Amino acid sequence: MANPRAAMLVIGDEILSGRTRDTNMHYLAGELSRIGIPLAEARFVADDHAAIVAAIQALAGAYDHLFTSGGIGPTHDDITADAVAAAFGVPIGHRADAMALLAAHYDRRGMEFNEARQRMARIPGDAALIDNPISIAPGFTLRNVHVMAGVPNIFQAMVASVLPTLTGGAPLLSQSLRVDRGEGEIAQPFGALAAAYPDLSMGSYPFIQNGAYGTNLVIRGTDGARLDEAMLKLTRLFG
Amino acid sequence: MANPRAAMLVIGDEILSGRTRDTNMHYLAGELSRIGIPLAEARFVADDHAAIVAAIQALAGAYDHLFTSGGIGPTHDDITADAVAAAFGVPIGHRADAMALLAAHYDRRGMEFNEARQRMARIPGDAALIDNPISIAPGFTLRNVHVMAGVPNIFQAMVASVLPTLTGGAPLLSQSLRVDRGEGEIAQPFGALAAAYPDLSMGSYPFIQNGAYGTNLVIRGTDGARLDEAMLKLTRLFG
Repeated sequence: MANPRAAMLVIGDEILSGRTRDTNMHYLAGELSRIGIPLAEARFVADDHAAIVAAIQALAGAYDHLFTSGGIGPTHDDITADAVAAAFGVPIGHRADAMALLAAHYDRRGMEFNEARQRMARIPGDAALIDNPISIAPGFTLRNVHVMAGVPNIFQAMVASVLPTLTGGAPLLSQSLRVDRGEGEIAQPFGALAAAYPDLSMGSYPFIQNGAYGTNLVIRGTDGARLDEAMLKLTRLFG
Repeated sequence: MANPRAAMLVIGDEILSGRTRDTNMHYLAGELSRIGIPLAEARFVADDHAAIVAAIQALAGAYDHLFTSGGIGPTHDDITADAVAAAFGVPIGHRADAMALLAAHYDRRGMEFNEARQRMARIPGDAALIDNPISIAPGFTLRNVHVMAGVPNIFQAMVASVLPTLTGGAPLLSQSLRVDRGEGEIAQPFGALAAAYPDLSMGSYPFIQNGAYGTNLVIRGTDGARLDEAMLKLTRLFG
């Protein structure tokens, strides 16, 4: 059975402007590989309603799961929840369960549960809340879309809340061999090996170190025995 | 006049699998902001012909410029040039100018200019070559698509070759203010300020440091005087 496939949508002007370096995609990619729901595509869009809606519709339609990051805070540029509602044509409003969570949180801290903070309780349709143990304001899952915060430690906590609820596939295994030769030297035999193992994915990643060319050869797949077999041949070729 | 807008397409299994952390998008985003061609969208796809072709067509059609990274080396998983040719319906073959560059390079180094290395001279249609001072194998520009290598130092060298040939807009300026308050406290007045300056883009980026909430408030735009004026008001509100 083929593994389910995931996409990610990173939302925020600050990443596209070069101000902030995204770390959530790399983190999610690793976690998804482990549970066998490989990340097949990622998109980054600005804080723009139409762009977010279009990306959600395209990615939620094309993949088994869509994970989003960013745009669910209390400020005017946090527009992800509304975009998700618009993408699926479902209503959005302050949901009682999210309001209760946040009211209790601000009450404990002696802080005002003002209008801006109440904005974080706006949840589309009958979405399930995603637990946020760090700053309480929840993410949510609507159909196959998992909406999470952009702040990396909160994003990671939400990923930890969501992933155990998903049915994964066989974990994506990988093995690699580092060779002190340029890609041009290994390309022909490596390509022939890849052609002989169409069930595995083989990639070569060149680097330059101290002025010398080298290549990392990586084999990926879900069948450990096949991976071992191909790796043995690779080592005989270039080891 | 509105600034031209750019998109980026990052190609490669190694980034989506979580093995490698992309650095090219962050680099390009910063360079493009400086020359006033802001990055409006980025996509990451695997080494998959159909996915690359579809992304090139969508992004080259929607934006003034498309920059790609990855997939132009000598190995079997380097399929970007063919995808660009397919996306535009133009022929691709070993181009004499690229062959001459590479033949001279390998000759100087006393290395065989084998079939795999010749693969890097496959250039679609009448694309203009992009200079690669590091490893010689050129990138290319076909219409509004700039095709570059994935290895970061080569990518950066190619960006330096391409950007001076483009007609930029007004540089995107940004100023920021760090406040020791959570987003929920500043959201209302900050949103009102943003509404009063629709020509500027204002974003708030929360962080947690030593257990305390803080927020970076950022104002972006192309008109320095307007930016200064808004920044002064921001400082009066929260400084």
